[in-house]
Amino acid sequence: MKKGKQIHISRSDIEGMEKIKRLNLINHITGYKSANLIGTKSKQGYLNLSIVSSVVHLSSAPALIGFIQRPTTVPRHTYTNVVETGVFTLNHVHEGLTDKAHYTSAKFDIKDSEFEHSGLKEEYLDGFPAPFVMESKVKLAVRYLSTYEISESQTLFVVGSIESIYIQNSAMKANGQLDLTAVGTVAISGLNNYHRVDQLASYAYARPGAFPTNLLQTINMPDFVK
Amino acid sequence: MKKGKQIHISRSDIEGMEKIKRLNLINHITGYKSANLIGTKSKQGYLNLSIVSSVVHLSSAPALIGFIQRPTTVPRHTYTNVVETGVFTLNHVHEGLTDKAHYTSAKFDIKDSEFEHSGLKEEYLDGFPAPFVMESKVKLAVRYLSTYEISESQTLFVVGSIESIYIQNSAMKANGQLDLTAVGTVAISGLNNYHRVDQLASYAYARPGAFPTNLLQTINMPDFVK
Repeated sequence: MKKGKQIHISRSDIEGMEKIKRLNLINHITGYKSANLIGTKSKQGYLNLSIVSSVVHLSSAPALIGFIQRPTTVPRHTYTNVVETGVFTLNHVHEGLTDKAHYTSAKFDIKDSEFEHSGLKEEYLDGFPAPFVMESKVKLAVRYLSTYEISESQTLFVVGSIESIYIQNSAMKANGQLDLTAVGTVAISGLNNYHRVDQLASYAYARPGAFPTNLLQTINMPDFVK
Repeated sequence: MKKGKQIHISRSDIEGMEKIKRLNLINHITGYKSANLIGTKSKQGYLNLSIVSSVVHLSSAPALIGFIQRPTTVPRHTYTNVVETGVFTLNHVHEGLTDKAHYTSAKFDIKDSEFEHSGLKEEYLDGFPAPFVMESKVKLAVRYLSTYEISESQTLFVVGSIESIYIQNSAMKANGQLDLTAVGTVAISGLNNYHRVDQLASYAYARPGAFPTNLLQTINMPDFVK
């Protein structure tokens, strides 16, 4: 149903949609998503690498992250390895790596290494048992903590604690912020679109009475304007 | 501890960090985040609008989303209204709206409307009781379903079902995918950085044996190359 330049899609419209169209729509509707590769090694020693777009920040103290485990889109191998070994890595996807990263979503056999198939290189750092992606410029060693079953969607919310962070120097700022554009970290939309990201605006912590001004523009202004 | 061009930050380094630096680091470390405004109205009729960067897709059938409720960064007013009224809206943040959107994160009094303070306009669509952001080009009417308490982080995972979607025509593709770059939806990094997003690559559903090729480049190739 159209309404001027705006399309209205009701709940019954969504339910009546052809499956792929609905998958596309609902996977796009929340906006841009993070792009990470989860690296694991099974108890038997088989390597696994899987792209995931649902990693979210949970808290800073303790430093925790979570991700959604969807049986249909993330291979079950990853989750099995996470629970059985208690460890995994998260590795940012950057420009130039998107084709290899996307290839890890293909349904390879459990004995097949997505590192080998994609051409991404495994790496081990400081004795952590799960494999990192050598090409990645922001990497996390994560310890598995627990799983929450989201009964309404039959998905799992997996919680892990950050044990180590590896960051390429050029991305790290003195105040702890990361310049993700400096290392070309990409964003994802839907199930198969990868995006270049540029800086647009940076604001101070917002307080009532002080409407935000873009600090990036202030910095770029000539001195006599400041 | 440095390791060539790569900085290693251990768990004890993180725990020993000054609070703001740690907040910045861990809020950046998962990569880019979605940018949405949550619109609610309290039982008493007070309007509330709050930026949130943790909205994630949960499932397509049923069409469900979730977001992380962090007591320190998202005003409690929003969550109270969500639970008490059972409804809320999600509205994409676009280029040109980031200053107003960021201003909603200031700690206004519960009786103050962030719509009024930020200058964003409230809008009501098809009888849904929660307020939408008129300027937004991708809007969701969401019904509250349940809350999962993530005990490790003392945060809440809030689950809702999509009741209606409103999309500007120009973003909607025939296959259900959205061209979020056409409407200038932004991405967030950390707590205060907003980003312009461009198309980089689009791939078909990945299958073993078929290494992904960028469909955007294929489309842009002259006919004699294809």
